[in-house]
Amino acid sequence: VSAGVTFPAGFTAAGVSAGVKPSGAADLALLVGAPGTSVAGLFTTNRVLAAPVTLSRERIAAGRGTAVVVNSGQANAATGERGAADARRIVEAAAAVAGIPVDDMLACSTGVIGEPVHLPEVVEAMPALGAALGPDGGRAFADAIMTTDTVAKTAEASSGPYRVGGAAKGVGMISPNLATMLAFVTTDAAVAPADLAGLAHDRLKPRFTALTVDGCTSTNDTVLLFASGAADQGPVGPADRAWAALADAVEEVGAALAAQLIRDAEGVTTVTLVEVEGAPSDGDARTIAKAVADSPLVKTAVFGSDPNPGRILQAVGASGVEVSPSLIDVWVGDTPVARGGVIPPAYFAADGLRGSAERAMREPEVLLRVRVGEGPGRSRVLGCDLSYAYVEINGEYTT
Amino acid sequence: VSAGVTFPAGFTAAGVSAGVKPSGAADLALLVGAPGTSVAGLFTTNRVLAAPVTLSRERIAAGRGTAVVVNSGQANAATGERGAADARRIVEAAAAVAGIPVDDMLACSTGVIGEPVHLPEVVEAMPALGAALGPDGGRAFADAIMTTDTVAKTAEASSGPYRVGGAAKGVGMISPNLATMLAFVTTDAAVAPADLAGLAHDRLKPRFTALTVDGCTSTNDTVLLFASGAADQGPVGPADRAWAALADAVEEVGAALAAQLIRDAEGVTTVTLVEVEGAPSDGDARTIAKAVADSPLVKTAVFGSDPNPGRILQAVGASGVEVSPSLIDVWVGDTPVARGGVIPPAYFAADGLRGSAERAMREPEVLLRVRVGEGPGRSRVLGCDLSYAYVEINGEYTT
Repeated sequence: VSAGVTFPAGFTAAGVSAGVKPSGAADLALLVGAPGTSVAGLFTTNRVLAAPVTLSRERIAAGRGTAVVVNSGQANAATGERGAADARRIVEAAAAVAGIPVDDMLACSTGVIGEPVHLPEVVEAMPALGAALGPDGGRAFADAIMTTDTVAKTAEASSGPYRVGGAAKGVGMISPNLATMLAFVTTDAAVAPADLAGLAHDRLKPRFTALTVDGCTSTNDTVLLFASGAADQGPVGPADRAWAALADAVEEVGAALAAQLIRDAEGVTTVTLVEVEGAPSDGDARTIAKAVADSPLVKTAVFGSDPNPGRILQAVGASGVEVSPSLIDVWVGDTPVARGGVIPPAYFAADGLRGSAERAMREPEVLLRVRVGEGPGRSRVLGCDLSYAYVEINGEYTT
Repeated sequence: VSAGVTFPAGFTAAGVSAGVKPSGAADLALLVGAPGTSVAGLFTTNRVLAAPVTLSRERIAAGRGTAVVVNSGQANAATGERGAADARRIVEAAAAVAGIPVDDMLACSTGVIGEPVHLPEVVEAMPALGAALGPDGGRAFADAIMTTDTVAKTAEASSGPYRVGGAAKGVGMISPNLATMLAFVTTDAAVAPADLAGLAHDRLKPRFTALTVDGCTSTNDTVLLFASGAADQGPVGPADRAWAALADAVEEVGAALAAQLIRDAEGVTTVTLVEVEGAPSDGDARTIAKAVADSPLVKTAVFGSDPNPGRILQAVGASGVEVSPSLIDVWVGDTPVARGGVIPPAYFAADGLRGSAERAMREPEVLLRVRVGEGPGRSRVLGCDLSYAYVEINGEYTT
C-alpha cells in the first residue's frame, strides 16, 4: 500500500486509535491541505443523510474546505439533532489541532447507523491525531478509515509536474451494519473550485457510481477531491495544455480506488463487469447495466459460474427501459449467448456455446456484454457475485 | 391440497407426464371451461415476453379464451419465431383434444428460458391429457404446473351460490433457471369479460403484484381468471347484490395462493410483510415497500433475525421517493425502532428496544412497518429473507 493522499505535495495526514473500535484498531483520521487548497465533493443521493454529509456539503457549497476529519465505528446517520451537534463538535476539535479555521474542516463518518458517535473518546484523541499529522501520514489515514474492509485502499498517479493520490474504504455501498463508501483524492495542482468540481463530476463520479456491491446506496457515501497547489505551477484549468493529462491522472486514481473497492466487496469471489451499448441514452444504458449487475439471479449465476443467458435477458427486459427484445444481443466474455433476443439452440447442445461461456464465467473477472439496439447510449458497471459469504457477513454479523 | 380450479362447476382439468422432466413428474396440464366461459388475464410487464404470453394476451384482447394448456420444463421465452410456432402447435393440439375452437385455447409455459419446447413429446402426450380431463382433475392440474415448487398450491372459497377455486406455481418471480409465477382462478359465476377484467385488476392484481421473492420479474408471469357461468345463476356484475361477496371470494382465493407462493419461495426461512403508510401516493408507498422488501441488506438481516433499523432507513431513503427523513417512523413487529428518522439511543441500550425487536424477528413471519409522513398512500408487500439456501438453489443449480 502506497502513501495515497500524501503522495502529492501540500498534504499532511494521520490516523490514530481513539479506542472506539473494540479491536483497538485505528478509527480516527485527518487529512489537511496547505493553505489555499481547493475542494470538490460528491455525496450520497440517499434522502436519509448522515450528519457529516450535511455539514460537508454545506461547507463546500459555501466555498470552504481544506481538510477533512474521518471517524470510523459510527456512521452518525439517523441520529437527529444530537448527531448534527456531535459532527460540529468533532470538526471544531479537529480544526483546533490542525490549526485551521473551523469552517474549513469537513467531516466523514462510517460505521453503525443510528448509534451515537462516541464523542468523549473522539475529542480526547484529537491532540494525538494532530501531533501525528505529517507528510508521510497517508498510509495511517487509509488504515484508520477502514471498517470491515480487509485491506487498505490507496492509489497514486503522476502527470508531468503534478501528482495525484487517493485513499478509499467500503466493502458494500453499505456494509455489515457499518455504512459507507468513502474516497479521498488529492493533487498538488492549483485548481479553482469550479474547475475542481467539474473534474470530480466528469472524472471521478463515473468511476464511483459505476460500482454496485448490493444496489444499496449508503447514507454516508462521500468522495472528496482536494487540490493543494503545492506543486507551485500556478493555477491550471480546462484551457491549459496540462489539464487533460492531469484529469487523466485523477481518473486513473479514481479507477484504481474503485477497482480496489469492488475486489474487497462483501463476500466477493468474482468481479462482474457489465457493459451495455446501443441504448437510447447513457442513462438508459446505466439503468440496464445496473439491473443486470444487481439482479440476485445473475449474481448467484456468476457465483455458480453458470452463464444462464435467460437470467440476463430477464434482467434487461425488466429494467424499465423500453427495449425491443428482438434487438438484444448478449455475450459472456467473447461468447455470444443471445442474438436478437433468442438464445441459440447451439447453446444447449453438448460442447456447444455453453462450454466456452462457462469457461469465461470461471475467470476472477467476468465480462457480461449486452447490446440492446443501435442507440448512442452506453454504460459500464462494476459489480460482484452473491455468495454464501455475503449472506454470512450480512446475516450473521450482529451489531 | 384441495381440488382448486375444478372446485367451481363448469371446469374440467387434467395433468399428465409428457416425459419432458427428467424425473418423470407430470409436466403438461389442461384446464377447460364450459362453453360460454369468460376469461381475464394479467401478464408480466417484462419487455422480454415468452411466446405463450404473447399468444394468450392476443386471444384475450380479441375476446377469446375458455381454456388453457400449460407445459412445464421449458419457458418458451427467448426462443424467437420457433417459439411462437411451437406455442401455436401446442394450442392446436390441446384445442383438438379438448374439442374447442383453437382460438379459445390459451397457453402458459414455465421452465428453462431459451431452450426450445420439446414439441414432439408434448404433442404426443395430448391425447392422454384429453382423455384424463375430468371434473376432479384440479389436483392433477396443480401438480403438473410445478417446476421447482416443493408443494402444489391450490385454494378455494365460496360466496352464496358461487364457488371460486385456484391453482398457482412459482418459487421465485423467476426460479432456478426455470421461470415464472403462474396462477389460475376459476368461478362458476357468469361474468361478462369486461367485469371479469375489472375483478382481476381490482382483486387479484394487488395480491400477486405484492409478492417479491427476488425483485426479478419473470418473462412468463401470468394470472388467468375464468368464469364458467355453470352455477346457473344468470349473469352477475358490479350492479348486483351478489357481486361484492363474489369479489371477496375471488380475492380470498388470490390471497391464499399468494401466501402459498411466498411460503414456498426459494430458500425462504422467514416471510417478510412490509407495510408502508403516509406516502404521497399508493404508488410511492409501493416503491418504498418494494425497496425495503428487496434490499439484500434487509433480507439478510431478516435471515439473521437482526432488526437493524439502519438498513431499513437506508432502503427507504434510497428508494427514489422524495421522503422527509425527519418524518420516518419504523416498527419491527410492535417495537418502534426509529422515530422521526432517528434510531432512539434506547435501541442500543442493554435489554432495550432491540431485545423485543429481535424477538419479533424470530417469528416465521416478520412485520416491518414504515410510516413516512401524513400522506394518503399505503402499500403492503410480501417478501422473504435471503438465506444460504437461496444462494445454493440459484448458484449451484446448473441448467
